[in-house]
Amino acid sequence: MSSETVVSGMRPTGPLHLGNYFGALKTWLELQEETDCYFFIADWHALTTGYEEPEELGKNSREVLIDWLAAGLDPEKCVIFKQSDVPEHAELHLLLEMLTPESWLKRNPTYKAAREELGKNKTNNVGFLSYPVLQTADVLAHRGTKVPVGKDQKPHLEMGREIVRRFNHLYDADLPEMKALIRQTPQLQGLDGRKMSKSYKNCIYLSDSPTVREEKIMSAQTDSGPEPGARLPEEGPVANLFTLLELFGDNDVLSDYEEQYRAGEIQYGYMKQDIAAAMNSSLEEFDERRNELEESPKELNEILTSGCEKARASAASTLDIVREKMGLV
Amino acid sequence: MSSETVVSGMRPTGPLHLGNYFGALKTWLELQEETDCYFFIADWHALTTGYEEPEELGKNSREVLIDWLAAGLDPEKCVIFKQSDVPEHAELHLLLEMLTPESWLKRNPTYKAAREELGKNKTNNVGFLSYPVLQTADVLAHRGTKVPVGKDQKPHLEMGREIVRRFNHLYDADLPEMKALIRQTPQLQGLDGRKMSKSYKNCIYLSDSPTVREEKIMSAQTDSGPEPGARLPEEGPVANLFTLLELFGDNDVLSDYEEQYRAGEIQYGYMKQDIAAAMNSSLEEFDERRNELEESPKELNEILTSGCEKARASAASTLDIVREKMGLV
Repeated sequence: MSSETVVSGMRPTGPLHLGNYFGALKTWLELQEETDCYFFIADWHALTTGYEEPEELGKNSREVLIDWLAAGLDPEKCVIFKQSDVPEHAELHLLLEMLTPESWLKRNPTYKAAREELGKNKTNNVGFLSYPVLQTADVLAHRGTKVPVGKDQKPHLEMGREIVRRFNHLYDADLPEMKALIRQTPQLQGLDGRKMSKSYKNCIYLSDSPTVREEKIMSAQTDSGPEPGARLPEEGPVANLFTLLELFGDNDVLSDYEEQYRAGEIQYGYMKQDIAAAMNSSLEEFDERRNELEESPKELNEILTSGCEKARASAASTLDIVREKMGLV
Repeated sequence: MSSETVVSGMRPTGPLHLGNYFGALKTWLELQEETDCYFFIADWHALTTGYEEPEELGKNSREVLIDWLAAGLDPEKCVIFKQSDVPEHAELHLLLEMLTPESWLKRNPTYKAAREELGKNKTNNVGFLSYPVLQTADVLAHRGTKVPVGKDQKPHLEMGREIVRRFNHLYDADLPEMKALIRQTPQLQGLDGRKMSKSYKNCIYLSDSPTVREEKIMSAQTDSGPEPGARLPEEGPVANLFTLLELFGDNDVLSDYEEQYRAGEIQYGYMKQDIAAAMNSSLEEFDERRNELEESPKELNEILTSGCEKARASAASTLDIVREKMGLV
């Protein structure tokens, strides 16, 4: 048994797509077999940018939970909970805000980049500024040591470490500093060759029906075909089709199409049919479990209730230390 | 029965002095007779500026509670609790941060003034910046409508109203906007004629013993005495002695000394003795109750436990609305 504790969350901004699966969820499935894990639906985080339209938040949280469970996340092996069910995260967030300099948040490159991307108007709220403090609270609440994140989140993790270090220094405490576990993820893109993202409408969702998946694959962008002697493409929509085949298909089938490409003889239509078939076959068990879960609201509630209890107990024991150190007893 | 709900807190930065009593606590004693009141020991607020030295916080919270009770605050008539016992305040703070623009906090004149006074280094933490959001959460949690505050806090209250208005607008809700109840307080100053403040070491504490009170009064600053025909002073340490006599003594005795002053015949030593005697006599019952409470830790705990239960129930019913409106169910 490893002594690491993993904490990670996903924002419920919509159903999960293949990018989410290969970028994060697949790592979680491995981690739950290895060590203590806390995985949460980050509904408060979703509000840091989406507070103006929260209508879909409850529905999306449920969809994300179903996707997780259908993919194999197992409440017997890890703690699965909804962030907003654990008020201890909010309390710790408040307490960490006391000792976090505003300048640390402002100099954070991810903060700057997000302000560029989303615009100043969408990101001028305090909740957005203070988001890395909340993230630190999420992890520290469970004394997490490893946080699987994408590269863009690394500065947040570094700041989290600095906040914990500052806490330990100010109050002579010994809380663990979290470390980033940078994901080595395949270069899966959207159907148009850009980053797979809901806002680009180029996603295949885990919850798409087999028919919809096939339609989406069949309509994926391609090109007019390679010349004989061509090298395999490294980026763009066709490269992405090869990635999909690699992720879902046989090695033999992949090699065949690579050869056809190099020979200038590839017919994308056939390749797409093979991709769709392989994907739908891989996801057969997922589809079955997903349909069952859709019909089991009681089971979903029970899983969240039980996860909430475990997460609250874990966070409460950290809060006991933090409160005592900060004179709140 | 009035339909107003009063919410107010005091930071436990030390035992209460006469300025705190006449500036706030006396108003609370009146309010508890009139309407629903929630009074809290604002230990989280104390951390917004005092997070580096929290050692005394627990002890100070207890002292403040004893001062309140000895002065007549009655747990049968109002809800008395410690802020950090009610995690709902922290949760609401987090949720209100989502919709509060950072610029509102930055333009707040009280924020600017405090940064001047305390220095940029002491006030560069996010908790300090976000303090008015916490204050808004404190009040909104109990759907407070009236907040007794000093003039310097009025901009915070205005901002609180704006935050609630924004919430109501964004989520089609109907939470009450709080109003400031500006205190009309006597111009009581410290023993040196400056503002009574712990940091100036010019305070008379409610918890001072009769002997210490007398010593402090006897050593209060005066001047070389008035000329015949002098007008009563309007400010400075001698004016303050008259204020003390007005607050604690007989009207007759006050008139006597005023006459002596105008005649240029006043002897400050006698006046001080009369002030000390009147003050100690006024505070006799307070002293007695305070001594009893010092010896009753169990009673103090029970009062906080019962207050916590009531405050949590009140805040939970507000959070139910807020969570539902923000999609967190």
